[in-house]
Amino acid sequence: MKTLHRDEKASRMDYAVSVDLGGTNMRVAAVDSRGRILEERRIPTRVERGRDDVVRRMCDLIIKIIASRKAGRCVGVGVGVPGLVYYNRELHESPNFPGRGNFPFKRKMEGRLPVPVIIDNDANVAALGEVWKGAARDVENACLFTLGTGVGCGIVLRGKIWSGTRGIASEAGHMVVDPDGELCNCGTRGCLETIAAAPWMVRRAHWAGERGESEPLRKLFAKKKNASAFDVCRIAEQGDPAARRVFQLAGRALGLAVANLTTILDLQKFIIAGGAANAWKMFSPSMKKEAFARSYVYRAERLPIVQSRLIDKAGLLGAARLVWQEHQD
Amino acid sequence: MKTLHRDEKASRMDYAVSVDLGGTNMRVAAVDSRGRILEERRIPTRVERGRDDVVRRMCDLIIKIIASRKAGRCVGVGVGVPGLVYYNRELHESPNFPGRGNFPFKRKMEGRLPVPVIIDNDANVAALGEVWKGAARDVENACLFTLGTGVGCGIVLRGKIWSGTRGIASEAGHMVVDPDGELCNCGTRGCLETIAAAPWMVRRAHWAGERGESEPLRKLFAKKKNASAFDVCRIAEQGDPAARRVFQLAGRALGLAVANLTTILDLQKFIIAGGAANAWKMFSPSMKKEAFARSYVYRAERLPIVQSRLIDKAGLLGAARLVWQEHQD
Repeated sequence: MKTLHRDEKASRMDYAVSVDLGGTNMRVAAVDSRGRILEERRIPTRVERGRDDVVRRMCDLIIKIIASRKAGRCVGVGVGVPGLVYYNRELHESPNFPGRGNFPFKRKMEGRLPVPVIIDNDANVAALGEVWKGAARDVENACLFTLGTGVGCGIVLRGKIWSGTRGIASEAGHMVVDPDGELCNCGTRGCLETIAAAPWMVRRAHWAGERGESEPLRKLFAKKKNASAFDVCRIAEQGDPAARRVFQLAGRALGLAVANLTTILDLQKFIIAGGAANAWKMFSPSMKKEAFARSYVYRAERLPIVQSRLIDKAGLLGAARLVWQEHQD
Repeated sequence: MKTLHRDEKASRMDYAVSVDLGGTNMRVAAVDSRGRILEERRIPTRVERGRDDVVRRMCDLIIKIIASRKAGRCVGVGVGVPGLVYYNRELHESPNFPGRGNFPFKRKMEGRLPVPVIIDNDANVAALGEVWKGAARDVENACLFTLGTGVGCGIVLRGKIWSGTRGIASEAGHMVVDPDGELCNCGTRGCLETIAAAPWMVRRAHWAGERGESEPLRKLFAKKKNASAFDVCRIAEQGDPAARRVFQLAGRALGLAVANLTTILDLQKFIIAGGAANAWKMFSPSMKKEAFARSYVYRAERLPIVQSRLIDKAGLLGAARLVWQEHQD
């Protein structure tokens, strides 16, 4: 009886190690099966040194955390990474990391670690985190958008990440919402990203200033070449119509994407996250209006589109959840 | 040992009864676990008599089939119905059946039958049929479009129908593909249906005739007020540019829908079915071109978009498969 009791206690002390691999910092945490962050550390990512160096330093930090923990056992490591994660979560490709083509992230990490590793796209794990402990913890079918340099997206169906056939589903930033729109980096015209990603919002604000539609925007870009979406948002908040229109356009594009995703997947909740989500007040009215008007199946109901609740913890919790889901299967 | 052998034999003789409930006819079949249609019967649907009458006659025919079969046991009944099937496959709503609002299809049928009943949308079961025994039998993630009076859609993920939270997913006919397009019956502008459904293709051909863009189309509608998509297709096949453009537009809209579905779900195959799919040669080149150009993740590969293989058997086989999946769970 005593042994059993001790085992049970030990299993309650077990933890997953999760990693949120950002372009600037990587954050590593120990997370228990109930979603409590027991410990969190952070080091610079230094992408310029290449993926092998990033993996080496990431694994060193993970080993340090495992070694330092006095109780419990590490059941596995989960990593949310920017970019595409292909084929059974084995291969990784990202424009933000130097080194072309596919990189065997999981295999490289498992070569350095004594526990199994699971990797997935950062927006996917953030979506899973919000469904586990955040803004969508009351539902099992949800979609998360991250508004930043690009528009990331993660879809959770029946409580699990939907990765698609080859692991590269939910690239909703590249859904076409405006067939005759601007040319996206991906080679297609009118992707959601060309309207709702931060650099595109800045670009549209810049154009409006150049076209003489807004004196405050013209002044902003004359003074500050690297003006950010945050700068544009402040001008919008002061009531400038051209700046407001940039966010309204982004809201409408997001609303159309939400409507189409609802029509296709009949989801329960949408979560908006990422830096540009701070402009919530500027884009959410047009987003909700468009989503409501464009969604056939949901016409009679209100679509729940909400802000992230976990903010910068969504990725860490989601990557840990991924480990716990594998562990429990 | 003998008993065991007899049981095994009996189980191989077991069958599901499946129903394909169309607007004109209902077809009922006995299908074994390997997808062989053992028997098939057909009677008129007579929608004008209302859903209760349809259910009564449907159940009478099912009972007749069960009573007449000399070997095996009926493991359940599966029904593919036009319209929305809500909430755990309990409620049914369809503009094509008289009687407003929700109708408890499953409960009404189970009140008359000695076996469990499972109902689902007709396009959903057709998609499942194609994945089981048809054009998509080599994959587990696929999407089927039926081109007819509307544009139906069914999505199969990991070998099972994705019904969504409330059972009403995959209404891709109401995906917005042209935000400034024509007003759809559903109240939204630019749904896929407003370009690729047969009545809309006819309408566009009519407009082209009226605008003087095509003498053959003008003559067609002057002579035949109820001209069909088939009539327009014949004129397109003779090389009339305006008639060809109607199908090219439909192909482009379908291609864009395919691209967006691929970007979101990373599927393996798309199947085009339904009456208007007979115009395959007229719309498939523009469909494939658009799907290829608009899909980010698949850019480097060819998207497999194919014609239905089971044609009018897809629904019967899919509804049977639904029963067998439930039976095996």
